[in-house]
Formats: sequence, C-alpha cells, structure tokens
Amino acid sequence: MSITFPTGFLAASTTAGIKPSGKSDLALVIRAGAAGGGEDRGAFAAVLTRNAVVGAPILIARDVRSRVMQGVLPVPRAVLVNAGNSNAATGQAGVEAAQKCMQLVADKIGVLADQVVPSSTGIIGRPLPVDKITTAIPGLVASLAHGGEADGGFARAIMTTDLVPKTAKAQITLSSGRIVKIGAAGKGSGMIAPRLDSWAIPAFGQQPQATMLAFVTTDAWITSADLQRVMNDLGAATFSRISVDNHPSCSDSVLVMASGQAMDGHAHPLDLASADGRTFIAAMREVCQSLAQQIVVDGEGATRIFSVRVVGAPSEDSADRIAREVINSPLVKCAIHGRDPNWGRIVTAAGNAGVWFDPMQASLAIGPVEVYRGGVPVVEALKDPRLAAAMAGKTVACELRIGTGAGEATAIGCDLSKDYVSINADYTT
Amino acid sequence: MSITFPTGFLAASTTAGIKPSGKSDLALVIRAGAAGGGEDRGAFAAVLTRNAVVGAPILIARDVRSRVMQGVLPVPRAVLVNAGNSNAATGQAGVEAAQKCMQLVADKIGVLADQVVPSSTGIIGRPLPVDKITTAIPGLVASLAHGGEADGGFARAIMTTDLVPKTAKAQITLSSGRIVKIGAAGKGSGMIAPRLDSWAIPAFGQQPQATMLAFVTTDAWITSADLQRVMNDLGAATFSRISVDNHPSCSDSVLVMASGQAMDGHAHPLDLASADGRTFIAAMREVCQSLAQQIVVDGEGATRIFSVRVVGAPSEDSADRIAREVINSPLVKCAIHGRDPNWGRIVTAAGNAGVWFDPMQASLAIGPVEVYRGGVPVVEALKDPRLAAAMAGKTVACELRIGTGAGEATAIGCDLSKDYVSINADYTT
Repeated sequence: MSITFPTGFLAASTTAGIKPSGKSDLALVIRAGAAGGGEDRGAFAAVLTRNAVVGAPILIARDVRSRVMQGVLPVPRAVLVNAGNSNAATGQAGVEAAQKCMQLVADKIGVLADQVVPSSTGIIGRPLPVDKITTAIPGLVASLAHGGEADGGFARAIMTTDLVPKTAKAQITLSSGRIVKIGAAGKGSGMIAPRLDSWAIPAFGQQPQATMLAFVTTDAWITSADLQRVMNDLGAATFSRISVDNHPSCSDSVLVMASGQAMDGHAHPLDLASADGRTFIAAMREVCQSLAQQIVVDGEGATRIFSVRVVGAPSEDSADRIAREVINSPLVKCAIHGRDPNWGRIVTAAGNAGVWFDPMQASLAIGPVEVYRGGVPVVEALKDPRLAAAMAGKTVACELRIGTGAGEATAIGCDLSKDYVSINADYTT
Repeated sequence: MSITFPTGFLAASTTAGIKPSGKSDLALVIRAGAAGGGEDRGAFAAVLTRNAVVGAPILIARDVRSRVMQGVLPVPRAVLVNAGNSNAATGQAGVEAAQKCMQLVADKIGVLADQVVPSSTGIIGRPLPVDKITTAIPGLVASLAHGGEADGGFARAIMTTDLVPKTAKAQITLSSGRIVKIGAAGKGSGMIAPRLDSWAIPAFGQQPQATMLAFVTTDAWITSADLQRVMNDLGAATFSRISVDNHPSCSDSVLVMASGQAMDGHAHPLDLASADGRTFIAAMREVCQSLAQQIVVDGEGATRIFSVRVVGAPSEDSADRIAREVINSPLVKCAIHGRDPNWGRIVTAAGNAGVWFDPMQASLAIGPVEVYRGGVPVVEALKDPRLAAAMAGKTVACELRIGTGAGEATAIGCDLSKDYVSINADYTT
C-alpha cells in the first residue's frame, strides 16, 4: 500500500483517453470527512515550482494554499491528477478547464470546488480535454477504494515517460502508542531539477524549493501551517536536491494531505518541537527522499546515479549550492557514465557554485578512496582497485569536504548517456 | 594577421613536447618597449575565471593585475602560453614552476619576471613540465616575428581539443586620422561557460564575468585602468554569454595588452567617453564577440549553434540571466539538435532564471516565425515552412520578449549531440 496506507484516504484511477498510448491517465485521492460532522482535523500543504512560467494547476494550487494558510478556505479534501496533458501554456482557458473538473469532483463527493486541488503533467500548450475528463469522473469517484490495488493504479496513472511507478510509505509509533502512517506516490523522469517554493510563514526562516509531481498522505493530526513548515524544509532538502537535467518544470508540485485520524484520542495536534514531532518529520523526510531518489534512478537515459555529499561548508545553503552545481555539470555526468573517476571535473564544478572555498583545505573521496587532497590529486589513489569498483556501481557516492564548517548537504544526480540525447532530440513538439 | 596585427607586437610558437600529439604547444606574444627608453605607453588588463578552484597562472595573473592597477608594477610586456598542461591542481609547486618559466623569458627580453604573464590550458593535476618549457624558451624568443605566419603559429599552439584555430582582428580610424588596430587569438571547445571576474575599480558599477583563453592586442594608447574597465564590460557581454556545457573552467582568462604605438602624435591617451573611445570599445567588442562565437561553433560535438536574444527585460542583467538559462538547458540543446521548434522548453527554461515575468506578456520567435504569444503557442505557426527552415540552419536565432523593459542581452549556445557524450564519457583522467 502507498497513497491510501494512512487511515482516512481512498484512491482511484481510470483511463480517460488523454494519453495516446491508451494507458490509464486520470487519478483521484480523497480524504474522508470527519465522522458525524465533527471537527475537521484535516490539513493541507503544498510546495510548488518557482518557475515564472507555470501551468493552470499551479496557479490554482498557489491560490488554494494561500487561502488555506490564511484560514479562509476549508481544508482541501481531494487531489485530481491527470497525465498526458500538463494544462500549461493554455492561458485563462486552462484555468477554466481545470475548474470545471474540480467542480464535478466536488459535486460528486460533496465538498467545495476549491477543496479539490488539480495537478497535471504531460504535453504543454494543448487544451486540456475537459470532456474526456468529466466523462470519466463519475466512474472514477464510484471506484474509490483503499488498498494495494487502488494505490498501484494511482501510481501508474500519473506516469508519463516514467518506466516504473514510484511509491513510498513509512510508519511511526507516537509516545501515546498511536501509530501514524505516511503514504506517497510520485512521477518524473525528464525535465527534473525541482526548485520548489515555500508558503512564507513569519518567523520561519528556511528558503525551501521543490519538484515533479509527488502526492503524500498521512493520518497524523497536524495543523496546515505546521504541515506547510515541514514541507517547506523537506522540499528544499529532498526534491530540490535531485536533478536529471537541470531544467525545472512549469508543473513541479508536491501536494500533501493529512487526515488526523490516527490521533483520535489526542487533545492537541502534533507539536513539531516534541519528540513525536521530530519522529514525524524524520519519517516524512524518509518518504520524500525515497520518492526523490526513485525519480533520479528512473531519469531519462540514466544508467547509474551519483550522490554528492558536501561537508565542512559554512552553511547548509552553501553546501546545497555546491552539491547541486556538481550533479548538474554535463562534464561530471559524462565522466560518471564513462566510469571515469574525474576528480578535476568534480572539484572545478564545485568551484563554480559561487561559494568561495580554499582548494588547499579541500578533499574529495569517491567511494572509499580519497582522490584529491590539499589542492592536488592523490596520484596513487587513482590506481586503487576500490576506485574502479566504486565507479562501476549502480550508485557512485562522492564526498567533498571544503573546510571545517558545519554546513552539509547531499544532492543526487544521474549520468548523461547517448540515450538521453536520443529521447530528447527525437521528441516532437 | 591577428595577434601581431597591431603595431608593436611580436609572436612566436614552438613544440616543447607537452602535448602527447607532438603538435606545437608553446606560444609567446611580446610588446616592444618604448623607443629610446621614452615613456611606456603600454597597458594591460585581464578578466579571469570566477571559479574558486584555479590554476597557478590565474593566481599569478590576479596578482599581476592587482599590482598593475595600483601602479606598483611596470606594465607587463609578454604573455607566455602553453597548451597540454593546465598547471592547475598543482599546488605551490605549480606557482613556482610558472615563475621559473616567467623568469627565463624575462631574462631573455630584458624585463622583470612579473612583466611576463603565464597562461596554461590542458590536463589538470599533473606537474608542469618546466624543463621542456625552459629548454624551448631560448629558441622561442629567438624566433619572435610579426606577420601572418607567426600569428597562425601562435593560434595553433594554444589549441587543445579545438578543431580549428580562432583569430580575429579589427581596425578603426580615429578623428585624428590615426589608425588603431586590434588583434586576437583564442582557444576553447569543451568546459566552456565563462563567468569572468573584474578588477574592481571604484565608481565603475558593472559586474563583469568571462571565459576560456583569449589574447587580445591593440596599438591604442589607453591607460591600464581604462582598458580594464572596457574588458570588465566586454567580458560580461561577450565571453560570459557563450556556453558549450555550462561548466566554467579553472583557467578561463582573457589577457589584453596595448602598445600605444598607433597614437604617437597624441597628447593624451584615449578618452573612453569620446567618439573615438566609443569607436574603440565597439571594435574591441566586435573582436571579443567574434572569438567567443568561434568557440561555440567549435564546441565539442556541436553540429549547430543557437542564439537567444532576450528583449523587454527590466535590466540587462536580468536579460543576461534568462538568455544564459535557455542556452544551458539540456532539453533545449537536444531540441535544437533534433530540429524541433520546442517553444515549451525554451519558455520554461526562461522561467527558471530567477527573474519573474508574466508569460501572458511574453512572446517567442524562432527565426522569422512567432511561435508563442500571450501565454499560449501560435498553433498555425508551428506548420510554417519558414520555421522548419530556421531549425535546419547552422545557426538558429531565437528572440524572446518578456515585457516592455529596456534590458536586452544575447547568449550563444550549441546543440547537445551524442558526440558530446562520446567525447566526454570516453575521456580518461
């Protein structure tokens, strides 16, 4: 189970006819309302692409998020996702098309239209096929269910050029003994380099970022403001630290719904500063990191992934910038593809991040082998058979120390292969 | 003629045995001293990589530039260039190796060691073969000459993976009737995405950047401070707006020497604010732009280049950021390779530059055909045969309007081919 693993969620998927392949392309996840009309313990959060050019669903999600955070809109109850058409570069007509779909789902499940958040991925610049979607919605709603079959269908319906579906889950036990679950599904393969925004909340300093489509559910009881705080940080620390091709999309989104149903006996929502809160954040991070890494593994043309851990930086932000500069260098990506332990490309890419460091104080290890130290290569290390073995693995791990600061960050990229060029040079607009 | 086209320069090249190929690999350009020990009207300027990890020649050039600008070092008289070894990641030993070579040239031509500026390109992390270079220097100095043969030899000796030598020249007539000449040679093919620095001069606000190796000579009489001001701007406006692979090198340099000899009858050096000054700047820009474009054309694996002109931006800096974001997107580069007029990739890449603009006010033309306007594609335009013709050319020109501001900038990139992957994945450290 994944997206309906937490208590209080149902999912469904169907084939609306949007994908030319005829594969399933419409998916819905809903959060059940409070039993007997009681207090709604639900929460919603979102981190969205920072791109200046965005699709209609992003415009709507930004507005919904803003109104939820300000307490002027009831917490969303559903996310409607289609693949095959991104509803981007579609102008005002695109917004109206999405709203028609939202309204129909809302009518069927008895909520407000703005409590249904749309999400779209696929071709850009073509009108959303509203009729196909509205024709499919009644059957979609009627088939809502929980369990592995519904979850698998959801994860497959949101795929585009993905080769495999991507899901994750986690479970924690609170100090009260209650079990809180987290479920998730995501998609992404190309145009992957999320830079997610945040919804600014006073006195919460981090500058987050995020990517692709990811949907996370949990049955924790948490306020929307706190859930947004968690996602502001996790968007920056997980999805925004992966890259396939350094091209953030106009549709990158992470949408999160919490039902609160695992904490019925609690008098208060989760306190993020408590031990339970920290445990919850760690589990959310694990789920987000898992989805993010699955996306890189399935990156277009990728044959292996590589992680770059930067340590000793003056701040987490500077470590993050260096790590992302390294994973995005085409020269480094080609070296990883060719199993070449090219320390020079890694170190010079690091030097391009706009963060000053002293190469004489820096060192680089690839796998267990230190290949660069004190501004020069460790010549004998380049013949170490453990280095060749590290370069041949499905995952190549590098660690770059740039000084003695406490800042560290890990970014994950993939190699650059001729297949990437084939996939993207032969694609027709 | 190129590097010795202006009056007062001599050049030479030879084979020192640094390149495994056995091709010429050592080059020298010198500026003649003042006749009869008169006033030295020479000038020097440099714009250098911003990389935090730099080679020994950059460390030395930074120091020379700083002392020249402060008036505490006589103006440099020579540039010694080797290809085949970048003298980078060589530590303090690399600096001392370069100094030995500088001293020997200085002794031979009768100047101070610090008046000989070193420049190196090639493999990283291997000791500079000082003995080979010092053995070759006497013959190199003895063969100094001016004319096409010396210039061609210079341009070939500085090549690494370049397929063709790169030179440029220009000539202007001052209001006095005197003719001022500019000559240049450059190299670069991979690891090309210059971000050049500037030497900060109070009350001169521009934030320049630059790339690869380029050497420019002129017989204008201009102060070093003014020459540096010109190069601060031109580095940012020409070399820093090209990219082959978005990976600035640790050795990117533009070194400029002026002899003053074309303006013997003048009482004052060139005034940049005068009509003559503006004419000189325009000619220097033409030379720099020519070299920069030649580097992209010869980019590793490139089959065509594309220019992205951004207009209507709030500032030149924001236009520059957008244009560079577009030319560096692997997805855009693959589309250019596949002759795909993929407006969506171009527009979304533009949206990733960290500069906000309203897509509804934006428009994009590829060649003569407007393909995107008011937030949506111009569907009928995508069938225009002039669009297919524009995509099939050796140079694809795009113009993106993002608003009504006065800021504009043009960046030049190349396509991404499977050959780029072959060249860089099969290269061995």
